[in-house]
Amino acid sequence: MSYNWDMAKRTNKATRPSMRDVAQLAGVSQTTVSFVINNVPDANIPEETQERVWEAVKELGYRPNALARGLRARRTHTIGFISDEIATTPYAVRMIQGAQDFAWGFEKLLLLVNTGRNQEMKEVAVDVLLERQVDGIIYAAMYHRQVFPPDPIREVPAVLLDCYCGDRSLPSVVPDEVAGGYTATKVLLAKGHRRIGYLNNEDPIPATSGRWQGYQKALGEWAIPYEENLIVAARSDQAGGYDATMALMQQPNPPTALFCFNDRMAMGAYDALRKLNLSIPNDVAVIGFDNQEIIAAHLYPPLTTMELPHYQMGQWAVEHLLHLIDNPQASQEPAVQHKMACPLIERSSV
Amino acid sequence: MSYNWDMAKRTNKATRPSMRDVAQLAGVSQTTVSFVINNVPDANIPEETQERVWEAVKELGYRPNALARGLRARRTHTIGFISDEIATTPYAVRMIQGAQDFAWGFEKLLLLVNTGRNQEMKEVAVDVLLERQVDGIIYAAMYHRQVFPPDPIREVPAVLLDCYCGDRSLPSVVPDEVAGGYTATKVLLAKGHRRIGYLNNEDPIPATSGRWQGYQKALGEWAIPYEENLIVAARSDQAGGYDATMALMQQPNPPTALFCFNDRMAMGAYDALRKLNLSIPNDVAVIGFDNQEIIAAHLYPPLTTMELPHYQMGQWAVEHLLHLIDNPQASQEPAVQHKMACPLIERSSV
Repeated sequence: MSYNWDMAKRTNKATRPSMRDVAQLAGVSQTTVSFVINNVPDANIPEETQERVWEAVKELGYRPNALARGLRARRTHTIGFISDEIATTPYAVRMIQGAQDFAWGFEKLLLLVNTGRNQEMKEVAVDVLLERQVDGIIYAAMYHRQVFPPDPIREVPAVLLDCYCGDRSLPSVVPDEVAGGYTATKVLLAKGHRRIGYLNNEDPIPATSGRWQGYQKALGEWAIPYEENLIVAARSDQAGGYDATMALMQQPNPPTALFCFNDRMAMGAYDALRKLNLSIPNDVAVIGFDNQEIIAAHLYPPLTTMELPHYQMGQWAVEHLLHLIDNPQASQEPAVQHKMACPLIERSSV
Repeated sequence: MSYNWDMAKRTNKATRPSMRDVAQLAGVSQTTVSFVINNVPDANIPEETQERVWEAVKELGYRPNALARGLRARRTHTIGFISDEIATTPYAVRMIQGAQDFAWGFEKLLLLVNTGRNQEMKEVAVDVLLERQVDGIIYAAMYHRQVFPPDPIREVPAVLLDCYCGDRSLPSVVPDEVAGGYTATKVLLAKGHRRIGYLNNEDPIPATSGRWQGYQKALGEWAIPYEENLIVAARSDQAGGYDATMALMQQPNPPTALFCFNDRMAMGAYDALRKLNLSIPNDVAVIGFDNQEIIAAHLYPPLTTMELPHYQMGQWAVEHLLHLIDNPQASQEPAVQHKMACPLIERSSV
C-alpha cells in the first residue's frame, strides 16, 4: 500500500523545496526521506540510501526543521490514539513507537489516551479526541483480541491495532498467530526434533488457538502424529511455564524440544530444565514467542523466539489511517483485515 | 498536601448529590471516594472503607456515571502529559497509570504525547497541548535526570515527573535514590553481611551517584570501612551484571552479598552465581533496585529489591498539578522539589 502525500497543498512551494522534491532527487519514497531526516531508529534504511537523501537535502537546500516549524505555525494535524493498557504495561509499548515514528514522519502528532479497561473512559476518550478535531483515530489493544469500540469513533477514519471488531466493519491489523506457530515448530523440526512439546496458554484468546493451530499444521506437513500428552496448557507466565515443563519432562518418553506460548513461559521452562540438570539447547531446545526483549535477549542462553511485530503493526495502522484520511472513497470498500507476519528471532536456545 | 475540590461549582446541586456529599456522609476524603467508585486498582483502600463509601453512594442516590456524563457534556478538563520514551519502553509505564488513575478520579482526562528524545517534537507537543487548552502539563522522563523543557510550558501550571530542571524553577518529583541505596544496604547489614559488593552503573546519572552514596552512608553507620575493590561499575544490564559479579566473586576475599544498581544487573548476577555454583541467598545474598516486576518477580529465587515508586510519583504529579491549577497564588511560592521514598519489596534473595 502506498500513501499519496500531496506536500504541495500544505507548503509554500515558491519559498522552499518540499520533501517530495528531496524524494524525487534522491530516487526514494517520501517515507524514506522522512525516516532519514527524522532519524527513525528502526527504519533500517541502508547507509548508502541515507547518504543519497542527505545529498539531495543539501543540494536543494531543504530544511527539515520546516516540518516542526510548520507544526508550530498551527498547521498541526493530529491523530488520536486510544489504547487500553499499552502505555501503562510493559508488553506492547513498541506499537506506540511505530505509530509515532511513522506519524511524525508525515507531520502528524499522535495524541494518546490510555483508558485501561474502563468502558466509560473509552467513550470519553473518543469524544474528547473528536472535539479536539483529530484527523483520525487508532484504537489499540495490548494483546490481540476482539474489541467493542464506542460508536462515535466512526465519525472519522479509524483503524484497529492489535485487535478487531466482531463484524469486521473497521480496518484492522493483528499478528498472524497461525503462521507464527507454524514457523516456530518448523524451526524445531528442521533441527531434527520429532517429539516437540507445546506449552500452551490456557486463556481462550486468538493467540492461544492460532499458535496451537500453527504447531499442528507444521507437524501435519512432516507427517508427525499429534500426541495429546505433548501439550500442556498452563498460566502464561513463569510459574505456568515451570509447571508445564516439569509435567512434560517427567513423562516416560519426554520431548526433546519445547515450543512455548510466550517468552515468560519459556523463562519458567528454563528454570525447570535447569532444575532437572538439562542443558539448553543440547539436551532440550526451547523456542518462545513474543520477543519480549527484556526477557528473551537476557535469558541464558539467549532465547530464540518469534517476534510480535508491534512496531510494524503500529506503522501499518498509521499508514492505513493516512490513506483513509486522504481517500474518503476508500471507506466505501470492505475494511482491510491485515495479518502481519511474526519474524523469527534467532538466538541460542535451539 | 490536600487538594481542594469545589464540586459545587461544577455540578447542579439541586438535581443530584455530589461526590463531596458522599465523602462527608462516609467520613472520608473525596480522593478516597473517587478511588473507590472508579475502582482504582492500586489505591489500597481497606475493604471496610470501600463498603462505607458504597453505602453512602446508595443512601444518597449518587450516580458515579455522572462523572463520565459530565465529561461527555463537554465540560471535560484535560491535562497534558509529555513524556520522552515512557509510553514506548517497558521501564516506567506505571507513572502513566498513576497519573491517569488520579486524574480520572478528579474528572480530568490525560492527553499524552510521547516525544522520544526529539527536541523539536517536544516543542511541538507543548504548543499542540496549549492550543488544545489543557489546564496544565506534566513533563515526564523515563528515568530520573535533568531536563530542559521548552519555555512555553510555563504558560500553564506544570510539574516535572521523574526529572528536574537545573534552576529548580519548576516543581518536581523524583525517587529518593540516596535513601533507597541506604535501605538496600541496611537490609543486607541486618542479615549479618559485612562484605557487601556493590554493582554500580557506569552512567553519570543521579541514580548512580545517589544509590552509591546511600550504600556508603549505611556502611559508615555500621562503622564498616569502604573498600574500593568491593565496587565494580559496569553497563546497567544483564551482561554488565554478569561481568561485574564474576570480577567481584573471583577475588581472594569475595563478598557474601551483592547490592545491584538495578534488577537487570541482578539478573546477570544470578547467571554468574549459578555459573560459579553459588546458591542464592545461602551462599550469596542479592538485592536489586527498581522492582521491574517482569524481571524481579520472575527470577528464581524471586528477587528482593527496592521499588521505584513510579505509580505514586505519577499520582503525586497530578495531585500537585491540580493544586497549582486551583491555587494560582501557589506559583509565587518556591517550586516544590519532592523526593519520594523507594519501598523495600521483600522476596527470597536475601
